[in-house]
Amino acid sequence: MVNVAIVGASGYTGGELLRILLNHPEVEVTDVSSRKYDGTPIEKVHPHLRDTGLVFKNINPSDFDADVIFTATPHGASMKIVPDLLETGAKVIDLSGDYRFNDIEVYEKWYGIEHTSDVKGVFGLPELHREEIKKAQLIANPGCFVTGAILSGIPLSKAKLVDRMIFDSKTGVSGAGISPTTSTHYPNIGDNVNPYKPTSHRHMPEIQQELGAFSDVRISFTPHLVPVNRGILTTNHSFLTPENEGMTSEEVLELYKENYKGEPFIKILEDGEIPRLSSVRGSNFAHIGCFEIDETGRLVVISAIDNLVKGASGQAVHNMNIMCGFDETTGLKMYGMHP
Amino acid sequence: MVNVAIVGASGYTGGELLRILLNHPEVEVTDVSSRKYDGTPIEKVHPHLRDTGLVFKNINPSDFDADVIFTATPHGASMKIVPDLLETGAKVIDLSGDYRFNDIEVYEKWYGIEHTSDVKGVFGLPELHREEIKKAQLIANPGCFVTGAILSGIPLSKAKLVDRMIFDSKTGVSGAGISPTTSTHYPNIGDNVNPYKPTSHRHMPEIQQELGAFSDVRISFTPHLVPVNRGILTTNHSFLTPENEGMTSEEVLELYKENYKGEPFIKILEDGEIPRLSSVRGSNFAHIGCFEIDETGRLVVISAIDNLVKGASGQAVHNMNIMCGFDETTGLKMYGMHP
Amino acid sequence: MVNVAIVGASGYTGGELLRILLNHPEVEVTDVSSRKYDGTPIEKVHPHLRDTGLVFKNINPSDFDADVIFTATPHGASMKIVPDLLETGAKVIDLSGDYRFNDIEVYEKWYGIEHTSDVKGVFGLPELHREEIKKAQLIANPGCFVTGAILSGIPLSKAKLVDRMIFDSKTGVSGAGISPTTSTHYPNIGDNVNPYKPTSHRHMPEIQQELGAFSDVRISFTPHLVPVNRGILTTNHSFLTPENEGMTSEEVLELYKENYKGEPFIKILEDGEIPRLSSVRGSNFAHIGCFEIDETGRLVVISAIDNLVKGASGQAVHNMNIMCGFDETTGLKMYGMHP
Amino acid sequence: MVNVAIVGASGYTGGELLRILLNHPEVEVTDVSSRKYDGTPIEKVHPHLRDTGLVFKNINPSDFDADVIFTATPHGASMKIVPDLLETGAKVIDLSGDYRFNDIEVYEKWYGIEHTSDVKGVFGLPELHREEIKKAQLIANPGCFVTGAILSGIPLSKAKLVDRMIFDSKTGVSGAGISPTTSTHYPNIGDNVNPYKPTSHRHMPEIQQELGAFSDVRISFTPHLVPVNRGILTTNHSFLTPENEGMTSEEVLELYKENYKGEPFIKILEDGEIPRLSSVRGSNFAHIGCFEIDETGRLVVISAIDNLVKGASGQAVHNMNIMCGFDETTGLKMYGMHP
Repeated sequence: MVNVAIVGASGYTGGELLRILLNHPEVEVTDVSSRKYDGTPIEKVHPHLRDTGLVFKNINPSDFDADVIFTATPHGASMKIVPDLLETGAKVIDLSGDYRFNDIEVYEKWYGIEHTSDVKGVFGLPELHREEIKKAQLIANPGCFVTGAILSGIPLSKAKLVDRMIFDSKTGVSGAGISPTTSTHYPNIGDNVNPYKPTSHRHMPEIQQELGAFSDVRISFTPHLVPVNRGILTTNHSFLTPENEGMTSEEVLELYKENYKGEPFIKILEDGEIPRLSSVRGSNFAHIGCFEIDETGRLVVISAIDNLVKGASGQAVHNMNIMCGFDETTGLKMYGMHP
Repeated sequence: MVNVAIVGASGYTGGELLRILLNHPEVEVTDVSSRKYDGTPIEKVHPHLRDTGLVFKNINPSDFDADVIFTATPHGASMKIVPDLLETGAKVIDLSGDYRFNDIEVYEKWYGIEHTSDVKGVFGLPELHREEIKKAQLIANPGCFVTGAILSGIPLSKAKLVDRMIFDSKTGVSGAGISPTTSTHYPNIGDNVNPYKPTSHRHMPEIQQELGAFSDVRISFTPHLVPVNRGILTTNHSFLTPENEGMTSEEVLELYKENYKGEPFIKILEDGEIPRLSSVRGSNFAHIGCFEIDETGRLVVISAIDNLVKGASGQAVHNMNIMCGFDETTGLKMYGMHP
Repeated sequence: MVNVAIVGASGYTGGELLRILLNHPEVEVTDVSSRKYDGTPIEKVHPHLRDTGLVFKNINPSDFDADVIFTATPHGASMKIVPDLLETGAKVIDLSGDYRFNDIEVYEKWYGIEHTSDVKGVFGLPELHREEIKKAQLIANPGCFVTGAILSGIPLSKAKLVDRMIFDSKTGVSGAGISPTTSTHYPNIGDNVNPYKPTSHRHMPEIQQELGAFSDVRISFTPHLVPVNRGILTTNHSFLTPENEGMTSEEVLELYKENYKGEPFIKILEDGEIPRLSSVRGSNFAHIGCFEIDETGRLVVISAIDNLVKGASGQAVHNMNIMCGFDETTGLKMYGMHP
Repeated sequence: MVNVAIVGASGYTGGELLRILLNHPEVEVTDVSSRKYDGTPIEKVHPHLRDTGLVFKNINPSDFDADVIFTATPHGASMKIVPDLLETGAKVIDLSGDYRFNDIEVYEKWYGIEHTSDVKGVFGLPELHREEIKKAQLIANPGCFVTGAILSGIPLSKAKLVDRMIFDSKTGVSGAGISPTTSTHYPNIGDNVNPYKPTSHRHMPEIQQELGAFSDVRISFTPHLVPVNRGILTTNHSFLTPENEGMTSEEVLELYKENYKGEPFIKILEDGEIPRLSSVRGSNFAHIGCFEIDETGRLVVISAIDNLVKGASGQAVHNMNIMCGFDETTGLKMYGMHP
């Protein structure tokens, strides 16, 4: 049993952490912090989480007393508090972008702010970095698009099969956060499709960092807002290199099955089944499938995740489970909600 | 630990029973039956339920060997198999309309078929019939609209406050089942509202039966299909009788709080909070709120449930928990999924 | 050919006025005014209206030089400029609530602001006030909910058939305007139903005023936000008075057909057809149907309109056509867009 | 004034032809044919098109007496009647795939049926084949995905800028037609994204034929169903060839503006505006924009059309206008419907 605190618990990823952790058998949620909602019961912000007894408090970073602290704070804000939180002796899992980059300059270029913290985090994708996560005190939980994208591409990059990957992602609107803006106004989204930042989304360099670790594959990324609450469907278009031209769909499928063998949250779809958002809605599973190759040598791999679960809070709890030595699926066994 | 079988497991309520029961700590799902899908792994029909090892089988009713059997079969089909299932000694929870009516003639009038079974079920709304459920061998699980409607009206009918209730319900499309029809074709539902059977839906007499047990309140019911996957939002418009004219919103609120005290799945909303579907999505909770009275003496009470959970499979599992002596919330603790 | 100006043209009703008027053969749009967007081409705000050459200008009310001026300004703002606009000699059609009430005190009670203008408008529902509209210089264009509600109830009130009407309305989100708020944030609306102001929406007294002119019917009104861009579906639940108890559905249908005979934008549905939003999407038509009576003497009439067209800008253009002596359907002949 | 008949008028493209043609000032719709609905008034199938007086008739192909005949019939069915229709002397515009291919073998391979007609059609994309359309008696109206895709790619292929184009398309569900299927069942589409035929959709060879006429660009195509009624958003990912590496976004934009100069239905978006479906909803416009180039040399061009208008019936009417010598925009001036 561990004591858990959440900083910045009033947003969607905070709410989702609560939804999961309140039913986690090894966890007691002891503190939920929010400056804005200090003194407010959590159901006023998260209307689905009733009668928990939890009330937002404005807590000084150094005053936390928890075994594990999740920081669901915006980028820039996290790095101002994480060092103090680490000082309390807690394990910290940060859901912002602040600690995801090996190269601070890349962060500063894409986020446009100075990086002022010198602690280092482990990139919290268990399927890539499980061993380091076990020993880490600070986890940089991956971005939502990043999770969907790299899970669809890891086996290809490792095997050096392709030289380019184009990630065309379709995301639910909860990824934009809990604050209303023009681009999340219902009449702009309903019955509509909105591409945005077609070549300049800051999840691109994060994808590049992780996939580029295995080969010199070139990464392109374009996100689209679709009229969906949750979920990211990523269509990974890649091109077999000349030396891999004869590769078959069956061989690619086998490569994925082999690569993800034993992974508790990765499901490889076969027999013509194609991933879709509803199958993973509300769950920590990632579905990966398709593996078709067309006449031009383009290979299509499709992944589906819930952006708030496997793309954020669920993956964060998975990281906690690994760090704390719990069974990895504890508190995360719920299936997707189809329909 | 009980062995559980599901008959007719290939529809939405069957899928939802599986989603819940596969994570229920006191249950082992031993058989999932379907004539149509005999031999098919369940993930081919329920793509979110992967790697369970379960395969649909076509099983003769008298060959079941389970402690509890859920029949997620259509009305008319249930009454043909339930007597045989009861003969096996199992507790049976039927999700069809076949055993819901005290008066067979009402059933035959509204369902248009002859009722040929002489076993009797207990109407499985725990908030009304908990004691009988404990002792029952056969449960008639309530209709989805019915659950939303009567939960919004029980305290009023018991207290004889009103003489009429108009239930104006807005339902998600999963209530129409897994088979495609013109009325569930996406282009007919998306960005649209479709009223249907405005005065002739067969859930009306079921509402009448349960609410009419306490007073001679007259019941009207009109359902609407809205572009939503799951959930029923019921707006209960009722009229204070002359002798109750001075009643205040606060008094009505207190009546509901008193009436539902200790009920694990009923949440009474206060302080101007209004129920909405997202707060109960995927959960077994019913949210009830509003309690406003306008200048004409109309009282508005609003309830929100997930039609597939509290309105069907979750309530069925709740009934099983009561029948088997488990803690009532076992396997049903998940919160709603907002957003 | 008339010169037309639009004040407050940067909102949804302004955009919709432009969409209609730019294809109106008797109109030239000469000025589109907006303080906020002064100098901005209209396609930057209304991305569907491209290459019109129109640019928002900030124009002083007394400087307008147009035959007809539409004021698509918020309530409170309209009454500050309408007197000056009338002074220019123009016909004015105001889309706010400022001039809709016969009794200023009702306005001040429900809108919470002092009414400071002493000019009077004609309530611009052509089906009720056509003759006055012909002679008017100022039109108070009706509210969107109001239009849907009273069209469903006029024949009943005129014939004194019922003593109560409950309007349960389901509205698209564009009715909330172009500015994003928490209640229009996509994740709060998508896959959801949100009732709001269940007994206190300020369109209620407007409905009361118009329907109460014919009988002392009591009016109740509850709106719900549904995941739809445009449209209002109103379910009018009313109760036959004792003296009308034997009334049949067929007789009610005939009453509606008789009442709306010759009305160019009213379509009475027969043969079991039920109105739905898609059939009127983007059009100025109102569909009215159902007319079923249940066993308790409740009568159900259902209307469907597009809130931005028949519920706002289309009706405003209809009023203009009447005022200017054009054929009433000029520029308004487009059918609904189903699907 | 021309007499127009529609064969197969009971589907979505038939309904859309009617919606447009009933307000076309140069057209009288004289016959609407449907075998299935012989004798039925059109509003029973197209509930938005009321009081037109039109009734479906089952008409023998050689009995038509019209100046222009639209065949909104399925592939395979069209080629059985088009020769007879041409014999009547009418101009024929076929909305199926039957006459779109220069090479019959490509048709037979992708459609899996034998091609039995030896008349030839002109590929009816006005932006490419206007001069031939003027003189044609038979038009093969392009596929919906095809229209969105090739409009986004023509200038690139003509200028030989890129060697590959990946079309990642997001389509509304009306493209699947009026008949309900499992894949158009609301609960499978709502709040979901469904890729399908990721490498094997038969619109691919049609795109290849038209774009391949100008260069040897390799074409890949993957469609996705999104929860939208109408519209196709195509994201065209292409790769500058080594000799064009220094090309800038501004130069690409200029290329598009030059290429589509004077085209009445093509709108090139500048200044960072990105196409979205709502801006073209219900209209015959195609919006094309983005033109961004990322660090890997990938160029992104995005197009948005309404699949039922520019992608089908509107383009068919555009072709009719050209064939009949009408102003090209006659009957097609309506703007998109945002929101």
